Amino acid sequence: MNSFWNPEDIVSRVLAPGVTAKIASGEKMMLSLVTLAPNAVVPTHSHPHEQMGLMVSGTMEFTIDREKRVLSGNEMYFVPGGVPHSAKGGPGGAVALDTFTPPREEYR
Amino acid sequence: MNSFWNPEDIVSRVLAPGVTAKIASGEKMMLSLVTLAPNAVVPTHSHPHEQMGLMVSGTMEFTIDREKRVLSGNEMYFVPGGVPHSAKGGPGGAVALDTFTPPREEYR
Repeated sequence: MNSFWNPEDIVSRVLAPGVTAKIASGEKMMLSLVTLAPNAVVPTHSHPHEQMGLMVSGTMEFTIDREKRVLSGNEMYFVPGGVPHSAKGGPGGAVALDTFTPPREEYR
Repeated sequence: MNSFWNPEDIVSRVLAPGVTAKIASGEKMMLSLVTLAPNAVVPTHSHPHEQMGLMVSGTMEFTIDREKRVLSGNEMYFVPGGVPHSAKGGPGGAVALDTFTPPREEYR
């Protein structure tokens, strides 16, 4: 198992049109460095895994259940397991780090 | 429990001289946005919590067990529970996101 990852060495996964992710997995959690093109959408979905995240650059509209926020800077967010959420890249796009516990097996 | 955090609203914790953290906690994991002043040191330590992290800006020397790397860009790292690790801010300092599962009760 890796100790260090350079994102340049990770093959991108396409999560949705205009949405790609570089994924690094530990044992009990997983990091997903997500790039959203301008206005790209991650449709509403849910999963049993707990999710927390950090804005890395740009702006992103993020909706958790019925609470919608426009995130920027290094704002952070928390999605409990099973709660519906969605995202939309801002006009200049966005990079965000999503973290999951446990790791999402479908992303390994 | 919060869904969103603006780091500007979080009171910084001092982790070591020149090392501060803004902490956001979910149920099963915790985010810690750490700022290291130039050359500031987090001494070698370990904890049973699994840790993964992302460089947000600057450079940081990070040592896991006996493997030392200078991290920059958005490089990522993984510290299994119980494994000794340490960090040192680069000449321009660093910001990194540490994530833990389970949450570190001493940081709540």
